[in-house]
Amino acid sequence: MSLTLGNIAGRFGCELHGDPDVSVERVATLQHADGASISFLANDTYRPQLESTRAAAVIVGADDVAACPAAALVSANPYATYAHVATILHPAEPLQPGVHRGAFVADDADVPPSCEIAPGGVVERGAVLGERVYIGSNTVVGRHARVGDDCRLMSNVTVYHDVRIGPRCILHSGAVIGSDGFGIAQDDQGWTKVPQVGSVEIGADVEIGANTTIDRGAIDDTVIGHGAKLDNQIQIAHNVAIGEHTAMAALTGVAGSTTIGSRCMIGGASIIAGHISICDQVLLAAGTGVANSIAKPGAYGGFPANAVDIKTWRRNVIRYGQLDDMSRRLRKVEKQLRSARGDA
Amino acid sequence: MSLTLGNIAGRFGCELHGDPDVSVERVATLQHADGASISFLANDTYRPQLESTRAAAVIVGADDVAACPAAALVSANPYATYAHVATILHPAEPLQPGVHRGAFVADDADVPPSCEIAPGGVVERGAVLGERVYIGSNTVVGRHARVGDDCRLMSNVTVYHDVRIGPRCILHSGAVIGSDGFGIAQDDQGWTKVPQVGSVEIGADVEIGANTTIDRGAIDDTVIGHGAKLDNQIQIAHNVAIGEHTAMAALTGVAGSTTIGSRCMIGGASIIAGHISICDQVLLAAGTGVANSIAKPGAYGGFPANAVDIKTWRRNVIRYGQLDDMSRRLRKVEKQLRSARGDA
Amino acid sequence: MSLTLGNIAGRFGCELHGDPDVSVERVATLQHADGASISFLANDTYRPQLESTRAAAVIVGADDVAACPAAALVSANPYATYAHVATILHPAEPLQPGVHRGAFVADDADVPPSCEIAPGGVVERGAVLGERVYIGSNTVVGRHARVGDDCRLMSNVTVYHDVRIGPRCILHSGAVIGSDGFGIAQDDQGWTKVPQVGSVEIGADVEIGANTTIDRGAIDDTVIGHGAKLDNQIQIAHNVAIGEHTAMAALTGVAGSTTIGSRCMIGGASIIAGHISICDQVLLAAGTGVANSIAKPGAYGGFPANAVDIKTWRRNVIRYGQLDDMSRRLRKVEKQLRSARGDA
Repeated sequence: MSLTLGNIAGRFGCELHGDPDVSVERVATLQHADGASISFLANDTYRPQLESTRAAAVIVGADDVAACPAAALVSANPYATYAHVATILHPAEPLQPGVHRGAFVADDADVPPSCEIAPGGVVERGAVLGERVYIGSNTVVGRHARVGDDCRLMSNVTVYHDVRIGPRCILHSGAVIGSDGFGIAQDDQGWTKVPQVGSVEIGADVEIGANTTIDRGAIDDTVIGHGAKLDNQIQIAHNVAIGEHTAMAALTGVAGSTTIGSRCMIGGASIIAGHISICDQVLLAAGTGVANSIAKPGAYGGFPANAVDIKTWRRNVIRYGQLDDMSRRLRKVEKQLRSARGDA
Repeated sequence: MSLTLGNIAGRFGCELHGDPDVSVERVATLQHADGASISFLANDTYRPQLESTRAAAVIVGADDVAACPAAALVSANPYATYAHVATILHPAEPLQPGVHRGAFVADDADVPPSCEIAPGGVVERGAVLGERVYIGSNTVVGRHARVGDDCRLMSNVTVYHDVRIGPRCILHSGAVIGSDGFGIAQDDQGWTKVPQVGSVEIGADVEIGANTTIDRGAIDDTVIGHGAKLDNQIQIAHNVAIGEHTAMAALTGVAGSTTIGSRCMIGGASIIAGHISICDQVLLAAGTGVANSIAKPGAYGGFPANAVDIKTWRRNVIRYGQLDDMSRRLRKVEKQLRSARGDA
Repeated sequence: MSLTLGNIAGRFGCELHGDPDVSVERVATLQHADGASISFLANDTYRPQLESTRAAAVIVGADDVAACPAAALVSANPYATYAHVATILHPAEPLQPGVHRGAFVADDADVPPSCEIAPGGVVERGAVLGERVYIGSNTVVGRHARVGDDCRLMSNVTVYHDVRIGPRCILHSGAVIGSDGFGIAQDDQGWTKVPQVGSVEIGADVEIGANTTIDRGAIDDTVIGHGAKLDNQIQIAHNVAIGEHTAMAALTGVAGSTTIGSRCMIGGASIIAGHISICDQVLLAAGTGVANSIAKPGAYGGFPANAVDIKTWRRNVIRYGQLDDMSRRLRKVEKQLRSARGDA
């Protein structure tokens, strides 16, 4: 695959400083690019690498044109433009439609001929796949689950029974969708399992990272909104609802029955309590603990379990490193006061 | 499946306020129930929904009878009663005994005809299954492992060699039982792997959540007691022992050789150090770090790594959000004292 | 398998206090050893068990010889010596070379006859295995991936396309190598996926724990150095580089583009920010948050997100438990000062 710079500029509305007939074949980092590569600059950390890049072209913001030694494609959002260009230059592996002889599709499952079911893929009874679905090697789609058009379930994914997944979703290996929520009732004998009779509803254009788990609802469903993006090893408990276009970084946990709004950005390794509500457009710093509902859009941080505004949190983090020092100073102050009052 | 209210009242010792001949077919939340549904109230959060529910019947505590617009089934433990009713109305999928043609059972493995082995299920050599075991699609039971009667191993579960699992356990997808513990010995060349020659012993009626990992013992076994309930993405290191009926919420990690007592309740995302001991009936708040043994039953919280009693911890959490403020106030006090002493 | 004590002493340079012709057949803990067992003492916690052990021999440091009731094998590094002895007495399961009839190897994949591919194992097109590779049940090696000689991929492992793994690596069940990094670009419509066109390069002698995830690079590769040891449920984001012989305990997360040096020891449940650099020979206490680069070898701890030297951190942890007390004392001091100044 290759693209001319003129083509890129035209498609994505970039101003081109350079020869429109030059072609690029692949993306590369500024540092490792060669004359057939296009690169981008969207993070200040990498600006020092711009001047020495050997890329054929670089997607940059307007302020970086002057410093760019290669052709410059100017974008108001270089990273998004890069994403679109990279998608064209590096398309997903094309499907090889058909059911591999080592795959198992139940007689009453609905698998259109446009789907690819890789070896070891299992589509259990009553499951329904949309058009052009990819079911990776050893991936399991449980009974009566529904998977929308153009979904790609990579290898070793598990979708439990009755789960519903919208179109164009990507599920990475080890993801588990629809496992039982942690519902147990205590009595004198110990614990009784509470049947988890709800399911999981996943919208369109959702991506779910490797080894992320999303539990089915206890009664009603667990819901993941359109365009939500979940990284690896995230735990979503039963009856959580996550809003549209919310992005959540790895290792985050959301406890049961919590609602998270739309267009939130949740930093990695955050822990969010159950039965609370986080409004739209909340940004959480990595490692935040959220014990109480957040009703006002904005940036928050804090751990353990008391999200505060992110500026206070950043100052608190510094103070935490000084805690022993503060304790010693407090003791000294107390001693001075006792001494001043003559009772030391 | 349906049950009359009279039948429910009789089986579970509930006082019935309503018509004993009314039938219910399914469980529902107070909010979404219809005239064929039974619901319950066990969490104050949902009390406001009681008055407007359209459920045929609601399982409630004695205090909520008056406010219940539907038939009321009065229970001393509404959630446990609900669990029992839901189990009858929503039974687990019945087994379809037999070995699927796409499953693989070693010649010398012992798989009774009452078991169901789904497509891609693998039972390796010398493994022994009890009666009525369900081995889900693409689940692997390693050589010489033993799985007790009526266990249900969902899809894509891994049980390593020689692991022993008691009857009536449920293992969710992605769970890994018996992987090598993290045993490495350092010398001049780097790290030497320490063979992990112990195994894992899991008692009866244990449930293991999705993508939870339980390592085999270094020499002796890792042990999970009867009735223990482990949520998703928990990490249990080698030679941990977990007592009977202990429940542990998601994302918790327990480091090697630690012993946890019976009937403990471990909040999610807790981190428990190695080589310590936690006594029976300890409750840990979510996100607790436990660095030292706990010898007294009770509720504890705290992070990082210094569990304190839960009341102190809750106050500390508040103070943590005020840390920068405390630091400023301390500096002011110091300045005032210096000024008072004339050395400012 | 059995070894004489004389043989052990000779092979590993131990001084033997005891009969060189005595044989041992297995390893055991001091507590559970019998007359055919060899044990070791390398952790002070277990010293009290030495005097009552019934082991035939114990590997000990020089200081423990006198207290050893059995034959003593004196080693400068008892744990490493134990590791070597245990490896001989408890060798890994021998391979049964061949492709199981329930495994699937693509026509153009390269699988030497010395490999064992267990049932459900899938080797996709263009993949290349070295000699004597074990591919466990239901494990998937993606297209054009390369797996070095003598690797052991246990059951239900996933290796994505184009990943390269060096010789003698062990990958535990549920590990996912080469899933897409969390690359998403925001624009008005929501998120656009950024193709992850890099791969993962894993060196020789690396061990990867159960359900650990290692994402492929966004453009360049994610790199795991020779001899690195990763425990369970670790998350390695795209373009991370981990140095040789670095060991990382369970539940740790490393965000994107971070570099960790050689011979580091990372405590469990640590969270390491993206785009930073940690130098060689850094030790992190369990549960450490690292927000900034560390340029000096040494031991660090601290959470949230501000690693400090480990002594300060340990004192801070104590202060954290006293935080509410400090706050009260500060208020009292302020009141006394106001009172002394006559403005209370």
